[in-house]
Amino acid sequence: MPIRILITGGTFDKQYDEINARLVFRESQVGEMLRLGRSKVDVHLRTIMMIDSLDMTDADRDAIVQNCRQCEETRIVITHGTDTMVETGKALAAASGVEGKTIVLTGAMIPYAFGSSDGMFNLGSALSFVQVLPPGVYLAMNGRYFRWDDVRKNRQTGMFETTNDERRTAN
Amino acid sequence: MPIRILITGGTFDKQYDEINARLVFRESQVGEMLRLGRSKVDVHLRTIMMIDSLDMTDADRDAIVQNCRQCEETRIVITHGTDTMVETGKALAAASGVEGKTIVLTGAMIPYAFGSSDGMFNLGSALSFVQVLPPGVYLAMNGRYFRWDDVRKNRQTGMFETTNDERRTAN
Amino acid sequence: MPIRILITGGTFDKQYDEINARLVFRESQVGEMLRLGRSKVDVHLRTIMMIDSLDMTDADRDAIVQNCRQCEETRIVITHGTDTMVETGKALAAASGVEGKTIVLTGAMIPYAFGSSDGMFNLGSALSFVQVLPPGVYLAMNGRYFRWDDVRKNRQTGMFETTNDERRTAN
Amino acid sequence: MPIRILITGGTFDKQYDEINARLVFRESQVGEMLRLGRSKVDVHLRTIMMIDSLDMTDADRDAIVQNCRQCEETRIVITHGTDTMVETGKALAAASGVEGKTIVLTGAMIPYAFGSSDGMFNLGSALSFVQVLPPGVYLAMNGRYFRWDDVRKNRQTGMFETTNDERRTAN
Repeated sequence: MPIRILITGGTFDKQYDEINARLVFRESQVGEMLRLGRSKVDVHLRTIMMIDSLDMTDADRDAIVQNCRQCEETRIVITHGTDTMVETGKALAAASGVEGKTIVLTGAMIPYAFGSSDGMFNLGSALSFVQVLPPGVYLAMNGRYFRWDDVRKNRQTGMFETTNDERRTAN
Repeated sequence: MPIRILITGGTFDKQYDEINARLVFRESQVGEMLRLGRSKVDVHLRTIMMIDSLDMTDADRDAIVQNCRQCEETRIVITHGTDTMVETGKALAAASGVEGKTIVLTGAMIPYAFGSSDGMFNLGSALSFVQVLPPGVYLAMNGRYFRWDDVRKNRQTGMFETTNDERRTAN
Repeated sequence: MPIRILITGGTFDKQYDEINARLVFRESQVGEMLRLGRSKVDVHLRTIMMIDSLDMTDADRDAIVQNCRQCEETRIVITHGTDTMVETGKALAAASGVEGKTIVLTGAMIPYAFGSSDGMFNLGSALSFVQVLPPGVYLAMNGRYFRWDDVRKNRQTGMFETTNDERRTAN
Repeated sequence: MPIRILITGGTFDKQYDEINARLVFRESQVGEMLRLGRSKVDVHLRTIMMIDSLDMTDADRDAIVQNCRQCEETRIVITHGTDTMVETGKALAAASGVEGKTIVLTGAMIPYAFGSSDGMFNLGSALSFVQVLPPGVYLAMNGRYFRWDDVRKNRQTGMFETTNDERRTAN
């Protein structure tokens, strides 16, 4: 059974525009990344949008939910900016029509186009988790998976953590 | 609960020796790869050997089995050359004292030191599978996981496949 | 006789700040680049500033001129943003006290931190031109060298060209 | 006036064959490297052979000499393995019919296909030296240029040096 990959942009997929000296979105690099990873997982890629997750509107989130609801696949990876990945996770968990599906959101802190990106690692991770986790909405970052309702991005470290991690660090 | 990572070498960890113009083993790059992947998984790394898997002897496989048996961790990733990964999987499955553990072997077709390596993708994948798969011995390659007793490396394509994949391709 | 390398920043030396998702200056990477290029040229590195060349003020240009005037070396490479490299070239050519020196400005269109950077190529080029060109002020970009008074950056293509190139393209 | 680039192989142009786990020659990457370096130098590329310089025969060297003699261009870069680059330099210097030409041999210690290659730096360097050096046969390595009759490869360090460097190191 194939896996759906929905592409929404995020740091993950940023590229460098040398004429204007800034990071931009062009065509997604996820297909190229899968080729480099020598992936043989049967996947269907679809680019829904190419935006920063800070610019994501309710209408954008609706579009993501719609895509998850309507696609035939029951296992879905969503590439997404890290800043509002948790919000999109909540929107998906609250939506009707996606209950039986395993949905894993992932992204990167450093664009794939950089030599030092965490993108390949995260894509390998998300694509693996989605194959084995039970239905539900998850985030895959930092080599771990998180349930949508117990995860936050620590803006100081750029790492994702659970309420439990937070307590541990605080003590 | 931390995860044990046992390092045995393989293409994954080959580096380029510019003085002698050949691929060699130096210190493992797995720690650096986890840092680059921004991994926050609690892992214990141990380098058992740094060899080509074609050079792996029965004594070497015994050492790997021993390490899996004696370590406290119940979830273990083994980095390994791809050529005899399946043989080591069999040795682990046949061994006593590792039954309750989830063991995932992984490797790479292209050394991590190359820009175009599949190593980061595979490491992300293996580290994710090991966290969720039930006890047993598995291989993680090409974005998929395989049970030790239903996998072979296709030497023409360099891809791992099940008996089922093979049939499908043959038809 | 050693060569002076003056570092002023520019795209060349931009790095990715993953916490704030933008390109920033940290410590210069020029030393690391020379190591990677296996350079055995005797060089003295000095970081004067780490700024975008669009932000460069007259005072900044004075500081660059001062450094060229006061250093013992008669062969100088300056790493510089591409946008106002020509302006700094003019300031150097107009300055007194640097007449007997060979000064080569270089930069990059894509940060060195990106896999696809032109930085290594340009650094190798500038460091070579500076060793053999007669006294004067030059720019080294796109594998070519340009005299300070016959070069402009084509903002559409991001390439440097002479008045002659321009005419040729126009016809 | 265009520059001739003659490609002969060498470490520079080695690629990784993941099926057979060894370094091999495929099509030359020099064109791709020039594109990455954003080179606007007018060049004519020609691949004469793709071999290790340790395997280079007298007949191979004759072919290189022939190409230098017959090409219209008076400025020539030759990409070459580092091990016998000096020998080919000697063969070129001894040949008749190339006296008026500037010929620069270059190569790399680490294949371009590796992230850490010195190839881009050396190509930028050789292409720059060839534009400004007077007629003669030279090697461009380690950011420097060497006359064909005063250079050797130090096999311990992998660096090129003159008789003078050697003396200095010895004292």
